[in-house]
Amino acid sequence: MERKRIAIVGVGLIGGSLALQLHEKKISSKLIGVDANKDHAAKAVELELVDETWPLDEAIAASDVVVLAIPVDTVVTLLPQILDKIDQQIVIDLGSTKSQSIEAVKDHPKRGRYVATHPMWGTEYSGPQAAVKGAFENKAVIICNANESDPDALGWTKAMYKKIGMHLLEMEAKAHDLHAAYVSHISHITSFALANTVLEKEREEKAIFELASAGFESTVRLAKSNPAMWVPVFMQNKVNVLDVLNEHIEQLLKFRDSIEQENFGDLKKLIEDANTIRRIIK
Amino acid sequence: MERKRIAIVGVGLIGGSLALQLHEKKISSKLIGVDANKDHAAKAVELELVDETWPLDEAIAASDVVVLAIPVDTVVTLLPQILDKIDQQIVIDLGSTKSQSIEAVKDHPKRGRYVATHPMWGTEYSGPQAAVKGAFENKAVIICNANESDPDALGWTKAMYKKIGMHLLEMEAKAHDLHAAYVSHISHITSFALANTVLEKEREEKAIFELASAGFESTVRLAKSNPAMWVPVFMQNKVNVLDVLNEHIEQLLKFRDSIEQENFGDLKKLIEDANTIRRIIK
Repeated sequence: MERKRIAIVGVGLIGGSLALQLHEKKISSKLIGVDANKDHAAKAVELELVDETWPLDEAIAASDVVVLAIPVDTVVTLLPQILDKIDQQIVIDLGSTKSQSIEAVKDHPKRGRYVATHPMWGTEYSGPQAAVKGAFENKAVIICNANESDPDALGWTKAMYKKIGMHLLEMEAKAHDLHAAYVSHISHITSFALANTVLEKEREEKAIFELASAGFESTVRLAKSNPAMWVPVFMQNKVNVLDVLNEHIEQLLKFRDSIEQENFGDLKKLIEDANTIRRIIK
Repeated sequence: MERKRIAIVGVGLIGGSLALQLHEKKISSKLIGVDANKDHAAKAVELELVDETWPLDEAIAASDVVVLAIPVDTVVTLLPQILDKIDQQIVIDLGSTKSQSIEAVKDHPKRGRYVATHPMWGTEYSGPQAAVKGAFENKAVIICNANESDPDALGWTKAMYKKIGMHLLEMEAKAHDLHAAYVSHISHITSFALANTVLEKEREEKAIFELASAGFESTVRLAKSNPAMWVPVFMQNKVNVLDVLNEHIEQLLKFRDSIEQENFGDLKKLIEDANTIRRIIK
């Protein structure tokens, strides 16, 4: 594919990692960073994630493709403004929720230039120094409401994701947000709540530090994730998140009841049911 | 240290991994496996975890040290019987709860030969084929009620754990069971309940399979853990587990309320509180 000038709006964990991959795969002729946080912008250049950083308007004008890797509340406000300013540029967002961003521009005359995507990769760290080489390889990327994007914009976006090693799925935004609540958002809530549980109950931090096993670390690691990213995700996906969260509380109550009543058979059955996740997760 | 003949009762994940380490560090002159499950016993020999497998009584008679790596309910019933049968052997158990095992033999004339320990390592897999080389290195091991063990038994056990690369902590059984509920048992319950939540809500297993990110996998991986091990742990540690589980449900309700009421400030605060786990978990 012909190399393009690409602006990355938000040069943190996600934008920075994508920038590394666009450069490595020779997809970009130039990478322009945009970041409201001046320290992040400077760090992104220092770490050579992007070639230079520019203000948003100049970056848009100088680019063929504009990638939004910013919190989903900012996508909703910034996306229509960016579509107002573009000519034939392609605009791609990478946010963890899709319905509200798509809704925000559904009647915009430039709607066709926008491709709504969600690459299924992230870590609990944030900022440009958290960017990872080869991050997206062998992961899924979901493209939502693909038929609302212009064929050339959609085609380029798909080719780009394939070239960085992702496998493509298409889905309507509503279905995406529902599935994302199950396979991503709820994991973050349980992890945050688990951290708060242990911090609340375990006054001897030294004991946690010394005793915490790999099991504890894996269930609690997402609790280090950034509130600036996750507050708007949970709020935008409120209905689905609450639905899954209520179910999760019900499931925990089943464990509580079986332990409280010393019902060995029920407890064993609950664990055996959980074991069937092996069918799905290797 | 002088090499000893060591019997490993239960040659699964934990017993098998310890056997590998005892051999590698030249602590054992002979490793005798004991397992009620004939397939596991045969597999343990085939995988060269142990030199041979014998019935329990013969294994005890032929050993200097007897290690129990079996579910904690079986420890409580088997430990007094083993103490009945030993002469000067050292008996060590590796169970995840300690109060009931210690209580079961507190007035036994051979109590001093028993050392109650909990090496803080495990995985979600089980059986001899799950044994891992070098598993215990750089992990903590807790020795409980050390003053109730004979000095020579305690001394050998400590030297053995040091030689396989573990760092030692001493604790009363009550304190151990309390801390273990926080840093291990609750993680397993949340993971089991999360698996059941997703399996209950997400009827499209293909979607979970395709979309599940590393975050989901890390929070749910413990859900593959073995009920034969975990049912007795939760039941033996009922009071502590229920206490932490109730707190965890409270913490989840705080997340639910803040999302339901769209209280951005509260939700941000809850996540920032959770982020402080960074102080404790690297």
